Amino acid sequence: MQKIVLRTQHIEEYANDNAIRSYQQQVSEIHQHLHASISSDTENIPTGWLQDPLEANQDLIAEIECISREICRKSDILIVIGVGGSYLGAKAIHDALGSYFTKKDDVEVIFIGNQLSSDYLNQLMDYIQDKEVYVNVISKSGTTLEPAINFRIIREFIEKKYGFYAQQHIIVTTDQENGLLKKASELNNYRHLTIPENIGGRFSVLTPVGLLPAVVCGVNIRDLLAGASSAATELSSPNLDVNPAYQYAVIRNILLNQGHQVEILSVFEPKLKYFQEWWKQLFGESEGKNHTGIFPTSTIYTTDLHSIGQYVQDGRRFLFETILSIAEPEQDITVPFLADDFDALNYLTDKSLHEINTIAKDATMKAHANGAIPVIELNIEKLDAYHLGYLFYFFMKACAMSAYLLNVNPFDQPGVEEYKKNISSLLNSTSKEYKLS
Amino acid sequence: MQKIVLRTQHIEEYANDNAIRSYQQQVSEIHQHLHASISSDTENIPTGWLQDPLEANQDLIAEIECISREICRKSDILIVIGVGGSYLGAKAIHDALGSYFTKKDDVEVIFIGNQLSSDYLNQLMDYIQDKEVYVNVISKSGTTLEPAINFRIIREFIEKKYGFYAQQHIIVTTDQENGLLKKASELNNYRHLTIPENIGGRFSVLTPVGLLPAVVCGVNIRDLLAGASSAATELSSPNLDVNPAYQYAVIRNILLNQGHQVEILSVFEPKLKYFQEWWKQLFGESEGKNHTGIFPTSTIYTTDLHSIGQYVQDGRRFLFETILSIAEPEQDITVPFLADDFDALNYLTDKSLHEINTIAKDATMKAHANGAIPVIELNIEKLDAYHLGYLFYFFMKACAMSAYLLNVNPFDQPGVEEYKKNISSLLNSTSKEYKLS
Repeated sequence: MQKIVLRTQHIEEYANDNAIRSYQQQVSEIHQHLHASISSDTENIPTGWLQDPLEANQDLIAEIECISREICRKSDILIVIGVGGSYLGAKAIHDALGSYFTKKDDVEVIFIGNQLSSDYLNQLMDYIQDKEVYVNVISKSGTTLEPAINFRIIREFIEKKYGFYAQQHIIVTTDQENGLLKKASELNNYRHLTIPENIGGRFSVLTPVGLLPAVVCGVNIRDLLAGASSAATELSSPNLDVNPAYQYAVIRNILLNQGHQVEILSVFEPKLKYFQEWWKQLFGESEGKNHTGIFPTSTIYTTDLHSIGQYVQDGRRFLFETILSIAEPEQDITVPFLADDFDALNYLTDKSLHEINTIAKDATMKAHANGAIPVIELNIEKLDAYHLGYLFYFFMKACAMSAYLLNVNPFDQPGVEEYKKNISSLLNSTSKEYKLS
Repeated sequence: MQKIVLRTQHIEEYANDNAIRSYQQQVSEIHQHLHASISSDTENIPTGWLQDPLEANQDLIAEIECISREICRKSDILIVIGVGGSYLGAKAIHDALGSYFTKKDDVEVIFIGNQLSSDYLNQLMDYIQDKEVYVNVISKSGTTLEPAINFRIIREFIEKKYGFYAQQHIIVTTDQENGLLKKASELNNYRHLTIPENIGGRFSVLTPVGLLPAVVCGVNIRDLLAGASSAATELSSPNLDVNPAYQYAVIRNILLNQGHQVEILSVFEPKLKYFQEWWKQLFGESEGKNHTGIFPTSTIYTTDLHSIGQYVQDGRRFLFETILSIAEPEQDITVPFLADDFDALNYLTDKSLHEINTIAKDATMKAHANGAIPVIELNIEKLDAYHLGYLFYFFMKACAMSAYLLNVNPFDQPGVEEYKKNISSLLNSTSKEYKLS
């Protein structure tokens, strides 16, 4: 009774059961390597996220819920400061499980520190001027430029606004022991949540990094973690026949070897937009090194059928598509019958919008398959906290397997470090120039 | 004094001046073909958008501004219903020139009809229940499924809410003569704006399709059209040496022939997100046919440097990047000096956020170029209505040239039609099944 159903009817000509099973030996070895790292003492392989996430966070849940209750009681806005893995997971949860339209009594959660637009920050400062604000700054090292600059500016605002009580409004999520943010948090008596040392940024959504923002958004994080916990159990077998996460990893590898170099993660529910962004970081950063890896991109259908759809249907054939679909919506709506039938749509009046959306999905899959695009479908029953937690774990496990199948290390990001060094050195050098002039 | 500066320092090893100039003959022929179509009587080549957009819309501006004044006076919300070319251009203007945070007295513009999520539509119906609403439904044929279904549902809401006065709240943007929407608009006495027959969907942003929503958003459409008008003049030469739109088209073609099959349009200002989406439709739908074309994708930096940045830096080498940069922000903000320097960022306190963002852009271009990614930069002075109008025209003209260089027709979209037929037939057949059961 797995919570994610992997449908392969449109990829059988590219990756049949035999081709998939031929990876079993390799998959078992990688599986062994991954799981051995949990119990070993070495911290060379940061696989803390592989452990049952419900168990791992058991002692933290009550503390996080307690902080969240205070934030909800005392503030209009929670500003979450973070970038990359300290941003995308929390934003994915916020959008997937929240409302499209903010309701009056909800705490509004605003994500900043992920870019450097001065227009944005100016408008934000105007917007929050007269509001009650809490801040959750998330950064393992505390030295990543974007969140650091944004925190400096927001902290000044908070200190001016709340004076002696400012420290109450700042919650720091950072490393247990090291880093500037940890030091600042001790000096200023900020509340402090820990990012486990053996969990890297893009694998950290089910730690306090994602959990505090999630619970402020009204998400039941016990359900979220329970979903991930089910996944940890159900996806724990090295046997390809019963492990869809590994099947997905193997199929990707087969497709890449056939020249399908771009993967489009497609959804038919716009709420999943930032889940897609989270997924892009997960796979792009884990696999995109040594001049290899599948280039991860995304589309939201049916919107993008009317833009990039033409290319997918009939452009250069180096794509494949993974459709993440949802069986049941939260609420449905029926097409109304109209006496004048001005738009000739009365033939649809026995259908709901979700039924039509599902037919659109099937039509799309068929059309793209006919256009020589391999199409994988991953289907979940509904989009709730439980299934979202399951999805996070599913993709993290699939990603680790997939990267190892490519012979790259899923857990480093040398290219990002290069940019970070690059900008720091440019900033320092111009800084000196400015000071000399 | 061109308004877009094309910087090529990071692509010289891929496409030097000689290589670019070798396209002159071909470019001149295509240019001749395109421009001849304006004055010819045949409507086989829909190049109405090539004409001076200010001149073309002269008689309409006052009418559109008048309707907009009524909407702003009488409503809280304008719902714009459209998909593809009847959506992305207007949304691009809305986001690029509007505020990040909606202000109380502004008319809120909500775009629907571009997807089929029942959760979204349900939440929207709740949200607008007690608000004053106008609707602008945009569809050339009136038969595209997503906007048609959404309009049917919204029209019912408007008729229940306003009764006899409902027709006053609906403005139709559609074909001059044909289509269901045109007929409905006559029968119901809706106000009606025309999409010129010789302008296809993805080239229609500077017609009433984009202009009415734009002016409701507070955009000065005279400036927008003036920018496009300047572009029409400045980019009217077939001479590659003085026409950056054609230079861009040629460089893309050279890069594709070298195996750079994916183009990333990157920005450092998140407001441009839907401009990127508009651009993706423009190029994807114009070029992605006959199993050729560059796959268009996008990133928002610095955000995505911390996700897909690793892949761009060091993944499979089949990418190139076009960076659309802005010299001056609307407002800037300075990094404050802090006595405790808790984050060790005092060395930045003589810098503004926009300066740092610009340094990040230069650092990124350098890093990616060093990582064997060709990087083109397109720079505009500032992001205002004038420059945005210029950009729209620039890319449309570059796109037409680029598609012809690939030997594909820039103005059709056979793959999209396939999906449209596909879904209609699936809906009809299940519809019959349902009726039989």
